[in-house]
Amino acid sequence: MAYELFYWPSIQGRGEFVRLALEEAGAEYVDVARRHGGMDLLNSALDTETHPSFAPPFLKAGEMTIGQVANILLYLGEQHGLAPRTDPGRLWTHQLQLTIADLVAEIHDTHHPIATSLYYEDQKPEAQRRSADFIETRLPKFFGYFSRILTNPEARDWLVSEKPTYADLSLFQVVEGLRYAFPNAMKRLEGEYPALGPLRDRVAARPNIAAYLASPRRVPFNENGIFRHYPELDE
Amino acid sequence: MAYELFYWPSIQGRGEFVRLALEEAGAEYVDVARRHGGMDLLNSALDTETHPSFAPPFLKAGEMTIGQVANILLYLGEQHGLAPRTDPGRLWTHQLQLTIADLVAEIHDTHHPIATSLYYEDQKPEAQRRSADFIETRLPKFFGYFSRILTNPEARDWLVSEKPTYADLSLFQVVEGLRYAFPNAMKRLEGEYPALGPLRDRVAARPNIAAYLASPRRVPFNENGIFRHYPELDE
Repeated sequence: MAYELFYWPSIQGRGEFVRLALEEAGAEYVDVARRHGGMDLLNSALDTETHPSFAPPFLKAGEMTIGQVANILLYLGEQHGLAPRTDPGRLWTHQLQLTIADLVAEIHDTHHPIATSLYYEDQKPEAQRRSADFIETRLPKFFGYFSRILTNPEARDWLVSEKPTYADLSLFQVVEGLRYAFPNAMKRLEGEYPALGPLRDRVAARPNIAAYLASPRRVPFNENGIFRHYPELDE
Repeated sequence: MAYELFYWPSIQGRGEFVRLALEEAGAEYVDVARRHGGMDLLNSALDTETHPSFAPPFLKAGEMTIGQVANILLYLGEQHGLAPRTDPGRLWTHQLQLTIADLVAEIHDTHHPIATSLYYEDQKPEAQRRSADFIETRLPKFFGYFSRILTNPEARDWLVSEKPTYADLSLFQVVEGLRYAFPNAMKRLEGEYPALGPLRDRVAARPNIAAYLASPRRVPFNENGIFRHYPELDE
């Protein structure tokens, strides 16, 4: 049975965290909205499911429809060994994922601090103020947190154990996205938090991930997604 | 073994979602930072845990330390029957909780749209713009979503099944908090989404919750928490 992923077809967005997990697992899946007629399927699924999602992405897995990125990853982690099976390991991986989700929401709000319903151009001065604070106070706090975990005395190459989890895949995506969105800030910050780049590289070198990144299935970053490059926000 | 909850002692904040679950479950717990010397314990726990939390709340359960509200609730749900045990029910409950977490983050940002590191007074015009959009577009979208679930043909009295889950407790807290923060907007909106008030009432009438709400353990709402009443944001 192939999974069906429902997400916007032209952006990486939040769907990308799910795509990375599916690709690493070598799972069979259909990226529904990227097929002919798929957008209609996405919109009608949003309207008719008994377990509706507030927003894409959501994943059909047999009889189940699962929404919310971290929840989908919780499920895929259990199915495909992308998280430990023990309670402590399973919950710790999920905790890291939820912290990444918080960071992703803050990244989104750097370009949309006032309203998702407005264009970036309608909230540009506010976006500049918010981005400056994000680079100055928030990003160092998040990077310090993940670096501390990657460099603690028990740490191996990955956040949780000697094997990569869905949280490692997601942290890869965040580093990659932030390099695209804030290249100047990242040049400075990656020097201060040197554990992050190698983690990103280890994920990128996983055979299934490397094949995916080189394929047309990987949508390029663009200014409709979460990670947007607006030079005026990266000073 | 009593749980130990680590959270700021003088606000409901995000810790309240955990307190409500512990109270409904009748679980033995210590609200560490509300005891004499507890703030020192909280700060040192933040610094020394091998599984550190990015921010409070976190919960010590025997050998485990669990952070992130939704993750703590996932655990408590499994331990105390506050969520179904089946995969579909367990994941659906968690999906609802994560959607509530998204709403809570947006509520926080109505008074802090630019930076958590600044005072509300330093971002007041932006807070007014963001709050207006929140009341106009976001809150109706979230309320419409939860109402649709509460009123679907299979729905019983609760979001997930014939028994309350941690998601019901959290939705109670959101309605209660929004009534405190945005009384004018809520008067209008609760008329349009009439399923929410009765859900709130059913939770408030649970014996353990009613006892908790009447006890000194329930911190009153105030302007340091997530739900803040600034009349100028509620017009």
